[in-house]
Amino acid sequence: MSRLAHGMLAGLDEIAEVGRDAARGGYSRHLWQGPDLELRAWFIERATRIGLDVETDRNGNLWAWWGEPGENAVVTGSHLDSVPGGGAYDGPLGVVSALDAVASLKGSGFQPSRPVAVVVFAEEEGSRFGVACLGSRLLTGAIDADRARSLVDRDGVTLAEAAGLAGLDPRRLGIDRAAIDRVGLFIELHVEQGRGLIDLQSPLAIASSILAHGRWRLTFAGQGNHAGATTMAERRDPMVAAAHAILAVTEAAVASPDSRATVGRLEVVPGGTNVIASRVIAWLDARAPSDRQTRDLVADIEVRIRLALAGTGCSLQITEESWSGLVTFDPTVAENLATALGGTPLMATGAGHDAGVLAALVPSAMVFVRNPTGVSHSPEEFAEAADCVAGVSALERMLRSVL
Amino acid sequence: MSRLAHGMLAGLDEIAEVGRDAARGGYSRHLWQGPDLELRAWFIERATRIGLDVETDRNGNLWAWWGEPGENAVVTGSHLDSVPGGGAYDGPLGVVSALDAVASLKGSGFQPSRPVAVVVFAEEEGSRFGVACLGSRLLTGAIDADRARSLVDRDGVTLAEAAGLAGLDPRRLGIDRAAIDRVGLFIELHVEQGRGLIDLQSPLAIASSILAHGRWRLTFAGQGNHAGATTMAERRDPMVAAAHAILAVTEAAVASPDSRATVGRLEVVPGGTNVIASRVIAWLDARAPSDRQTRDLVADIEVRIRLALAGTGCSLQITEESWSGLVTFDPTVAENLATALGGTPLMATGAGHDAGVLAALVPSAMVFVRNPTGVSHSPEEFAEAADCVAGVSALERMLRSVL
Repeated sequence: MSRLAHGMLAGLDEIAEVGRDAARGGYSRHLWQGPDLELRAWFIERATRIGLDVETDRNGNLWAWWGEPGENAVVTGSHLDSVPGGGAYDGPLGVVSALDAVASLKGSGFQPSRPVAVVVFAEEEGSRFGVACLGSRLLTGAIDADRARSLVDRDGVTLAEAAGLAGLDPRRLGIDRAAIDRVGLFIELHVEQGRGLIDLQSPLAIASSILAHGRWRLTFAGQGNHAGATTMAERRDPMVAAAHAILAVTEAAVASPDSRATVGRLEVVPGGTNVIASRVIAWLDARAPSDRQTRDLVADIEVRIRLALAGTGCSLQITEESWSGLVTFDPTVAENLATALGGTPLMATGAGHDAGVLAALVPSAMVFVRNPTGVSHSPEEFAEAADCVAGVSALERMLRSVL
Repeated sequence: MSRLAHGMLAGLDEIAEVGRDAARGGYSRHLWQGPDLELRAWFIERATRIGLDVETDRNGNLWAWWGEPGENAVVTGSHLDSVPGGGAYDGPLGVVSALDAVASLKGSGFQPSRPVAVVVFAEEEGSRFGVACLGSRLLTGAIDADRARSLVDRDGVTLAEAAGLAGLDPRRLGIDRAAIDRVGLFIELHVEQGRGLIDLQSPLAIASSILAHGRWRLTFAGQGNHAGATTMAERRDPMVAAAHAILAVTEAAVASPDSRATVGRLEVVPGGTNVIASRVIAWLDARAPSDRQTRDLVADIEVRIRLALAGTGCSLQITEESWSGLVTFDPTVAENLATALGGTPLMATGAGHDAGVLAALVPSAMVFVRNPTGVSHSPEEFAEAADCVAGVSALERMLRSVL
């Protein structure tokens, strides 16, 4: 394929320098900040170049239409934002592959029987406002619009303020029935984020399900004080409370079959070397094979933490920031697509996706591209060029099979 | 005293709005950044107003001279910078009290037999460049100038760059024999940072000694990865390693008599909720009644951490950022000052001070003012107006006794 350069799809090459994070490694591309704005402009330019008409919906998601927008559309795409210090493939691979597959269909003279669109969802990672899949949740009403408007980023800017600065009307954020009702089928191509395809020895898989998962904010409050003048017996140190909590999170997750629980973000207030902290905020990410098991896991974590807190003199407040129930993708759609690809295997995943949010309202499917490192949300995330090409080719075949 | 307003010394009132930290509470006043620059300008204006001549030394410390600078000077003062989210008294109380005591001596027509100066030391808390008492360490050569020049702040700015921006010649940072040789006696007044004066039921105490103490940077490295797609068994999570370390720090300090050890600052890379961290940096502050005991404490902490690390798949790198051996203040000077005050008690402290750094080269003494909350490095830090007045009065009497 002539679009390949430097071993990656050309689209990935074009954005390879956007949002590089020298301090963390990898990329930091967060909603409506410099790199994300640059990626949005790049998407509009690239989609326009292949003859698509781009519109921005009321929630900041981008839709690039092949012909007239309309009902029963086949939509494919993913997201362009990243976690802090993320990889090059998580999100962009799905967008670039969608553009390439549609361009290839158009170039071949194919006439679709249904409207087609390439979509870019906003803030899939939740790296700026804390709620994953924010763009698709707003679109589908999976998050209350008033709650969403009041979300704040690390600088205290609300989503409403940021949306206004990005040219949206913050009062219009929220469920967008006209936009979602047009979608007849959504297909998201995504780099695999674990070792699933290494184990299956397959370049591709079709998603069967997504673990139930959610995010909780744990706030530990103690007594800020002087690190030298305060005896060990006098302390109420929330850093010690948070350390007990982090170990409790791991212990509880290990005790719950096929579950995962993580503290990957932590803020210390005030954060001085010679200062006993007054407050520590830890974010919990917990996932399990069913809604009930995930709720039980979080309840177990809370019990373990509260037991450990007894000796610390600190208090704990838990706030649920987001919740995503178990997603089982439409098995008929998944089987049909797997068959269209000549028997591609089905695979469950622990990673959340916009396709999981859309699956509650419209038939949705995912195709994963092998990641030979098994590492994601990290600069080590990778996909071989040959597997990326197989992904574009599979997406094109899937589109042909439903158009 | 007419200089009192709103229950604090007038000087504290004048700077009460400078560097307030809305997010953390209290004050954030860091070397050569906005609030610190404002406080330096305020000090120069206020010292000039009472007839002192202010000079900035090659390391950014400010000296306000009563008459001609000269040998065998009696110098008093403290610092104006703060920890992140610190209190109103730690540092500024000593500067304001020194200005008030000197103004009162001048106003009374007193003729000093020796030169007198009020000093403001730079970066006492080490909040910007990580090394406590940086200004007095540079002055006395207690830190190597090349090492100091290459210290970096949280934004990657070196001390050399910051000094240049502040109008200093970075090549001239370092030991300043002319400046230190002029000091015949240094007296620092400081708010008490623990419960020592509550227990002694005294508004004031003279310092006898300062615990040995230091700072170490602990860097835990693991494998950044996806929080949902990575099974618990596959993880090498440095947050878990850091949690074990924080608990080990507390356990080791409790096991070492009269010791304190704290992790009050921690950075998570990359710091996303749905991302297993790749690296966690924790800063250790450790203190004990002797140099040997402090070294043993840190060695014990390292052993405990390395044992705990075995199960985490993570590595640890330890870097010493600063070291301050046990300080025993000149007992004759301390006894003489205590007697001049009519029998003020002597007291040891766990908090580091510029007076402790100067004590290695010149006779130095400290007077503590009671803190009824027993809390410091926090907005709750406090001193009653009556105790502040007693502090100024005591400082004036001490100066009279040696001038």
